[in-house]
Amino acid sequence: MDELKKLIREVPDYPKPGILFYDLTTLLQDKKGFHTLIENLCSKFIGKHIDVVAGIEARGFIFAPALAYRLGAGFVPVRKPNKLPWKTEQVTYQLEYGTDKLEIHQDAVKRGERVLVCDDLLATGGTAAAAVKLIRGLGGEVAGAAFAVELCFLKGREKLNGTEVFSLIRYDK
Amino acid sequence: MDELKKLIREVPDYPKPGILFYDLTTLLQDKKGFHTLIENLCSKFIGKHIDVVAGIEARGFIFAPALAYRLGAGFVPVRKPNKLPWKTEQVTYQLEYGTDKLEIHQDAVKRGERVLVCDDLLATGGTAAAAVKLIRGLGGEVAGAAFAVELCFLKGREKLNGTEVFSLIRYDK
Repeated sequence: MDELKKLIREVPDYPKPGILFYDLTTLLQDKKGFHTLIENLCSKFIGKHIDVVAGIEARGFIFAPALAYRLGAGFVPVRKPNKLPWKTEQVTYQLEYGTDKLEIHQDAVKRGERVLVCDDLLATGGTAAAAVKLIRGLGGEVAGAAFAVELCFLKGREKLNGTEVFSLIRYDK
Repeated sequence: MDELKKLIREVPDYPKPGILFYDLTTLLQDKKGFHTLIENLCSKFIGKHIDVVAGIEARGFIFAPALAYRLGAGFVPVRKPNKLPWKTEQVTYQLEYGTDKLEIHQDAVKRGERVLVCDDLLATGGTAAAAVKLIRGLGGEVAGAAFAVELCFLKGREKLNGTEVFSLIRYDK
């Protein structure tokens, strides 16, 4: 996926000094790049009977619905607190400093449905692990987790133990 | 689109008393409903040479990338302030009480590119009109605006004068 890597903009010192941010917007706005990204991100899960793709707010929303469309699945949003209009389940998870929360509608996933979790980036894995917990709490089967980018050196996969993880563009340092 | 309307959950008194909220999550999580929604939302713009689809944060992100994928276009995010990592243009627009802001990357759209603006809901039209302004400011040609739902009685179309507006599910009162 080196052709896609070339389309990613590297922004130094964002969001804070010392952090190199991988800005996918330059890849997404490139029609060929975007198409290649979605096709390849899907490829691992075609024929795997995915019922719904769960996207994590906000950047996960950019990938999950396109995957859902391509896979013939439905789409489920996993959102920050107080954004969903109906009854929710909530999970609290650890950040580097402090905690954060995610919510899902109580009826978003039916018992036994096969769910693909999707986000833009797999970093430390805390957010994705929280989404997995929410889905399993509703009785859903997590069929896998798909990420456009993985920062392998942060070892987020270890937090997703037991889940099939697929990432398209990987950075080793 | 009555079959899609039936899949939408109506939540009374959300986000505040007296407001009836149309919750699309029940439609989105239905695989047949979601597929029908995206197919029909695209139908008007197939063959119209759309270069990029611009989605408005956060719920516009759910529709715009699926449309972009289906139309063979790129995707551009229009975000709330301080969410984009690179150089931005900003627009301030009127709300019922107070103002709000939207941002776009300065290089998100090239001069002359044909852009489809996309959001979940056309209500008063202020947000969409702001996105149109941002895109035109970068030299983009706004080829149309697509919305899953339109609250026709709020007359948002009037704020998008000069733009081809397409909505799939309409409420007249």
